[in-house]
Amino acid sequence: MTAAVLCIGTELTRGELVNTNAAYLCSGLTDLGFEVLEDVVVDDDRGRIIATLERLARTTSLIVCTGGLGPTTDDLTTDAVATALGVALKRDEGSVEAIRRRLEKYGRELTESNAKQADFPDGADILQNPIGTAPGFSVRIGKALAFFMPGVPREMKKMFEEQVEPRVRHLAPNTSCQVRLRTFGLPESAVGERLAGVEAAHAQVTIGYRAHFPEIEVKVLARAPTPGAARDACERATADVRARLGDVLYGDSDDTFAGVVGRSLRNKGLTLAIAESCTGGLVGHMLTREPGASDYLLVDAVTYANTAKTRLLGVDEDVIRGHGAVSGEVAAAMAEGVRRVSDADLALALTGVAGPSGGSPEKPVGTVYLAVTSAAGTLVKHRQFAGDRHQIQTLAAYAGLLLLKEIAQR
Amino acid sequence: MTAAVLCIGTELTRGELVNTNAAYLCSGLTDLGFEVLEDVVVDDDRGRIIATLERLARTTSLIVCTGGLGPTTDDLTTDAVATALGVALKRDEGSVEAIRRRLEKYGRELTESNAKQADFPDGADILQNPIGTAPGFSVRIGKALAFFMPGVPREMKKMFEEQVEPRVRHLAPNTSCQVRLRTFGLPESAVGERLAGVEAAHAQVTIGYRAHFPEIEVKVLARAPTPGAARDACERATADVRARLGDVLYGDSDDTFAGVVGRSLRNKGLTLAIAESCTGGLVGHMLTREPGASDYLLVDAVTYANTAKTRLLGVDEDVIRGHGAVSGEVAAAMAEGVRRVSDADLALALTGVAGPSGGSPEKPVGTVYLAVTSAAGTLVKHRQFAGDRHQIQTLAAYAGLLLLKEIAQR
Repeated sequence: MTAAVLCIGTELTRGELVNTNAAYLCSGLTDLGFEVLEDVVVDDDRGRIIATLERLARTTSLIVCTGGLGPTTDDLTTDAVATALGVALKRDEGSVEAIRRRLEKYGRELTESNAKQADFPDGADILQNPIGTAPGFSVRIGKALAFFMPGVPREMKKMFEEQVEPRVRHLAPNTSCQVRLRTFGLPESAVGERLAGVEAAHAQVTIGYRAHFPEIEVKVLARAPTPGAARDACERATADVRARLGDVLYGDSDDTFAGVVGRSLRNKGLTLAIAESCTGGLVGHMLTREPGASDYLLVDAVTYANTAKTRLLGVDEDVIRGHGAVSGEVAAAMAEGVRRVSDADLALALTGVAGPSGGSPEKPVGTVYLAVTSAAGTLVKHRQFAGDRHQIQTLAAYAGLLLLKEIAQR
Repeated sequence: MTAAVLCIGTELTRGELVNTNAAYLCSGLTDLGFEVLEDVVVDDDRGRIIATLERLARTTSLIVCTGGLGPTTDDLTTDAVATALGVALKRDEGSVEAIRRRLEKYGRELTESNAKQADFPDGADILQNPIGTAPGFSVRIGKALAFFMPGVPREMKKMFEEQVEPRVRHLAPNTSCQVRLRTFGLPESAVGERLAGVEAAHAQVTIGYRAHFPEIEVKVLARAPTPGAARDACERATADVRARLGDVLYGDSDDTFAGVVGRSLRNKGLTLAIAESCTGGLVGHMLTREPGASDYLLVDAVTYANTAKTRLLGVDEDVIRGHGAVSGEVAAAMAEGVRRVSDADLALALTGVAGPSGGSPEKPVGTVYLAVTSAAGTLVKHRQFAGDRHQIQTLAAYAGLLLLKEIAQR
C-alpha cells in the first residue's frame, strides 16, 4: 500500500522553515505499514497544487497533505482541491459555529476570512480541529484517498493521530507496533553502539534514532502480519533495548526529563527549592511546564545580580568577592541560602558562564558549578559545557535535573 | 528563473530524519533570485528517480539534487541519471585517485564500491568533494541544468557554496530582497486584514505570513530585474507595512520579543525584578536567553508556594487568605515585595491558573493577574487566556513583557 505526503507553502519552498511535518507524517505512515514513495513540497500556487495532487493520485493510494488552510489570501488548498475535483465549495455551518465559538473564547469576532475556513469541496468528509480554527477534510481524488490538514505542527499532529490514523489504519497490509524510549546522557553514536546487534537478534524489528538536543530518542519498530505478532516482537526487542540502555533510559515517549524528575520528588514526598543564575529560570520553567509542580516546588530564586544573591539568599558578599560569582563556593551558598529561606527538603543551585561574553582563561564560557543541599549536607559539582548560549543553558539545566534525579531515586 | 530541489533517500521517505538539506537549498536558491517551485523527496527507487528528474526537467530550469551518491547498493542516483540521459557511466581516474588518498588518511584501502563513486554519466561536469568520498556532478537534462551532490549536510553545503553557486548565479534573472517583521498582539487573520491591499499597491511584492505562537511573522518579498530595484521596491512596501502594523510590529527577523523588551529597559537604564507564580520562570528564561540580560535583570523570584510568596517577598498571609493567591491584590503585593527586596526600578509580578487543574467558577483555568510597580505606583491587570497549560503560560509571559515594553518605551 503506497502513500505520498504533500506539504503546501511558499515558506517551505523558500526554505524559511525546516519541514518537520513531512518527517512526522512519513514516519507515522511508515509506522502504520504504508510505503511512502515521495514527499513533495509545492509553493502556494493553485496550478501546481492541482497538478501535484492529480499526479500523486495516479501513482499512490493515499495522499496526506498539510498547509494552505488558513484565513489569508495565500491559503489556496481548499479551492485547489475543489477545482481538481470539479466541484463547488460549500460552507459547513457546523464548522462556522465551531470557529465562531473558538474565536469567542479569545474575545474575537468571526470575520469573512475566518468563515472561509469553513468552506469545503462539496462532498468532503470534514475533520474537526479542536485546537485551532482551520478544520481539515478528506476527499477521494481518482483512486486515491486524500487528507488535508492545517500546517501548524501541533494541530496537524493531533488531527493525524485522532482522525486520520483511524480512517487509514485498515488500509495498511502489515500491522506494526512501536515503542519510543527517551534517553539522556550519551551521544547518538554511543547509544547506537549499545544497541548494535538488536536488529540482528529480532528479525521483525527496526531500531531508529532521533536527536532532540540534548536527548536521544530510540524507536523500536516491529512489523508483522498480525497485531499480536507485532506487539510480541516489539515487547521482546524493547526488553532487550531497555536492558542495554540501563540508566541513560529515563522514560517513554510521553515523558519529559523534568517531568520524570518532578515525579520522583513527588513520590518521595520531597519539597524542592532552586536558585539559578546562568540558567535564568530555565530549570523552574522546565519543571513547571508539567502540571503538578506545585506538589513539590516551593521556590525558584533566579538571582541574576550579585546583590540579589546576597539580599534574597544571604550569600556572603565576601564569598562572592573572594571566589567570584561563578564558583563552587557561591553555588553551595546559593543552595544553602534558598533552602534556608524556603524550608525545602532539597535545594539545587546553578551558577556559570552561559556566554557569549563573560568568560575568562580560568572560567571560560561553559563553566558551570552546581550544588545540591539537604539535611545530609551539600554536594558541589563542576562541569564544563560546549555550545552556544542556549545549549550551555540547556545542558546546565539538564545537569541540575540529573543531580536531583539521582538523589530522589536513591 | 525557476528551480526545484530533489532529495533522494528512503531514510527521508520513512521519516527517519528531518530534511534540513531541502530547507538549506530552498533558502539558498531563493536568495540567489530563483523561484523554487517545489522540493521533492523520493525513496531509493531507480524508476522514481528517473521519472522525477524527467518531470522536473520539463517544468524548471534548474534542478539541485542531493543523496544517493554513496558506495552502497542502495545508492542509485548516478546510475539513474545515466539511464535518464541514455549515456554510459565512465570512470574518472582523477576522482578515483582523490578517493584513494582520502581513504588512506583514515588507514583504509580503496574497494570496488568506493571506486564506483568515481563513475559519472559520460560528459558530466565533475564537482570535487574535498571533505568526503562522494564527488558530485552536473549534467544537462533536456533544457534544465541539474546538479547532484552528496546527502551529508556538511559536504553538500560546502559543495553548493563553492561549486554550485558560482555556476548558477548568472542564470538568476531577478534578484530578490526580503524583509521579515515580527508582530505580537493580533491573530494572523487580523494581521492579514491590516495588510490587505499591500500586494496590489506594490506590484513586485509578495506578502507572506508565518505563525510562531503567539507571534505572527510578516514577510515582505520583492523581486525585480536588478538588486537596486528589488531593494527599492522592498523598502517602499516595508514602509507601508510598518505604518499599517503600527505598534503590533515589535522588531525585525533577528529580534525576539523578550530581547526587544530587554533592550528597551537597558536603553532607559532601568533595572528589573520579577516575581512569577503560574509562569514558573518562563519570563526570566525568555529574558535571559538573550545575552546581556545581566545589564538590567536583578532577580526573578519564582514563588510557586504561598509560603515562598510570604517568606521571600513579604506578601501578607492575610492578603493571600482573603483574596486567594490568584488575585490582583497578591499580584500587587508580589511586585511590590520583589521590588523592595531587590531595590529594582521596576518590578513585574504574575499569578494565575495555568491548569489543567486548579480552576474554579470564579477563577477558571487561564485567569491571570499581572502587576507592575515602580516609584510612580502599582498597576494591576486582569487577563483571561484560553489554551493548554503551555499556551496559557506563554500568553501570560508575553502579557507581562508587553506591560514592561509599554512602560520602558513611554
